[in-house]
Amino acid sequence: MATQHLDPTDPMAGPVTADALAAYLRAQATEFLRALRAQRDTGDGGPPARGKSRVGENGSEESADAALALRRSARRISGTLHTYRPLLDTDWSEGMRPELAWLSGTLAREHAYAARLDRLVTALNRLSGASPFPGRSPGAAASAGDATKGNLTVGAAKAGALLERQLTLARTRAHSAALQALGSSRFHAVADSVAVLASEVPLTPAADKADLRPLARAAYERLCDAVSGLPLVAAGHPYNAEALIHGLSPDPAPHPQDAPWHQVRLLLRLHRYAHEVLLGKDAPVDVRLLAAGQALNRHRDASEAAAAAASAARTPRIAPATAYALGVLHADQRHEVEASRFVFQQSWQKEAVSTR
Amino acid sequence: MATQHLDPTDPMAGPVTADALAAYLRAQATEFLRALRAQRDTGDGGPPARGKSRVGENGSEESADAALALRRSARRISGTLHTYRPLLDTDWSEGMRPELAWLSGTLAREHAYAARLDRLVTALNRLSGASPFPGRSPGAAASAGDATKGNLTVGAAKAGALLERQLTLARTRAHSAALQALGSSRFHAVADSVAVLASEVPLTPAADKADLRPLARAAYERLCDAVSGLPLVAAGHPYNAEALIHGLSPDPAPHPQDAPWHQVRLLLRLHRYAHEVLLGKDAPVDVRLLAAGQALNRHRDASEAAAAAASAARTPRIAPATAYALGVLHADQRHEVEASRFVFQQSWQKEAVSTR
Repeated sequence: MATQHLDPTDPMAGPVTADALAAYLRAQATEFLRALRAQRDTGDGGPPARGKSRVGENGSEESADAALALRRSARRISGTLHTYRPLLDTDWSEGMRPELAWLSGTLAREHAYAARLDRLVTALNRLSGASPFPGRSPGAAASAGDATKGNLTVGAAKAGALLERQLTLARTRAHSAALQALGSSRFHAVADSVAVLASEVPLTPAADKADLRPLARAAYERLCDAVSGLPLVAAGHPYNAEALIHGLSPDPAPHPQDAPWHQVRLLLRLHRYAHEVLLGKDAPVDVRLLAAGQALNRHRDASEAAAAAASAARTPRIAPATAYALGVLHADQRHEVEASRFVFQQSWQKEAVSTR
Repeated sequence: MATQHLDPTDPMAGPVTADALAAYLRAQATEFLRALRAQRDTGDGGPPARGKSRVGENGSEESADAALALRRSARRISGTLHTYRPLLDTDWSEGMRPELAWLSGTLAREHAYAARLDRLVTALNRLSGASPFPGRSPGAAASAGDATKGNLTVGAAKAGALLERQLTLARTRAHSAALQALGSSRFHAVADSVAVLASEVPLTPAADKADLRPLARAAYERLCDAVSGLPLVAAGHPYNAEALIHGLSPDPAPHPQDAPWHQVRLLLRLHRYAHEVLLGKDAPVDVRLLAAGQALNRHRDASEAAAAAASAARTPRIAPATAYALGVLHADQRHEVEASRFVFQQSWQKEAVSTR
């Protein structure tokens, strides 16, 4: 397999055979099984203590790393089955994808709630003019319990405590659900399928003579189509005030304007995985695409954090000062949404210039 | 007087004599007296009806125009006395400046409260996803009474009603104070001084041989010094999230970080007036400087609107939904503050390139 000229959009590149697909799927399946063993070895059975961050404790950290690795390979297997589905046994791949999605979704939730709480508490501290915590590295996730003891004002402190209560409860439930999932027969069936995949990839007879590149190119084109539907001109104007429109609309659902961006985030990921299949394990990292993807991750995180702040503000019988702080926090996170779109637009423009 | 090469920073430009100063002050004094007559002719004595916008009603509009013209010339006279004070009788100009400041401050307040309410209600409508009012030109100030009937949600509607109540009360008081000021002996003394100025400018004996340009240049240098103290590097990075820092701090006073920007706004105005003196009535408008000044006006307006929203949120016994809407509104206006700094930075960079 040639390791150059593998850009799916490059018409001069040579074909890539289904061997690359089989090798990629086997490698990801092996990663999945390794992460699964690590997950079982950590033996982390108890739910996180309420109001206490699990991040930073040793056993939990290993367990979280293992869960991350499990999700990472599950997403790659699922995405690859999708992009290259004409080359794979249909019944098998159609049956496996929803199971992988269920698994990675279930495992992602606990981490998402913890990260959301960290994001919101960090923002509350910033908005209160609190100095960062001494002795804590900037990369480390802040413990919400410590943070709310910081230099917060009454409203911000109450808002922080309310968010901590709500998101810790959600995280505890997600933790239990993840543990339950990992012990379920449904999960064992997924693990068995992945174990089979690690030794034997069910390719179709036609896959022998197939070229992967047109399928990878199609994934890239789906991404480009979706990006062309985004309001990138507006997003490229700083301070366009678009993200906070409907900030006070009565609809408690997530902002409908965010959906196309979330969709692009998923398609960008599929494109990345499709590319990984072509280039193999040592694929060079496309820095611009990485920046675009990170901007969309931040977009998603800020969007969900803003929704969590809005949702907390609908808690009955909260004090006006708490509600006010949650309103400021919601708007702050919606501006993060807007900022992320701006960064994505900047990255994508560079991307478009360099890959065409 | 040469009408070119009058850029105060241009070392090749010829001198400008005190005649230009006297002509400018006489012209502004004449404008002041004309505006004063117009103000008296409108005979607008009653305070504005509560909850009803005075903007758009004929007599009031004329009265507001006259008040604007009065303030406009009072500011120019005061600024000119400051910049060129070595050429003017000290006792006279030192005595007159605080009186002019008192007058323009008193006259500005009513308009400021009305504009603040319009800005906040417009923002609430935008944040609620309400469509603009049909049949109303974009430039026209929205009546708060109408606006709160729009497509606002409960919290936003209550926040709008609360702001309307508070700012209409403040405006009514400001209106009464302005009327009282216009009837006071203190005002008549100012008007008498300006009437003298319209015919006789009290120059010092040394003014005969003086050049205005070094004094204008000093005003420009004071501006540049103040600008160099602004955090322009941060302001030039979109979405730097600086303006909302301390957004939840306990200090109810206006954001201390805004003060240097307000100071630059005043110095920019003094520079503009100093320049007008040199170039005479038909001075070409410096578009970039105009944009920089407008950005700082918007900065000031958004800063004060954000403070008004925060202050309204401290009203006892408001509903949490109202407080939440005020929090979103506060953050929205603080982001307008940040956006204005970005625009100023962009304008100023252009300015610096073109005039140096």
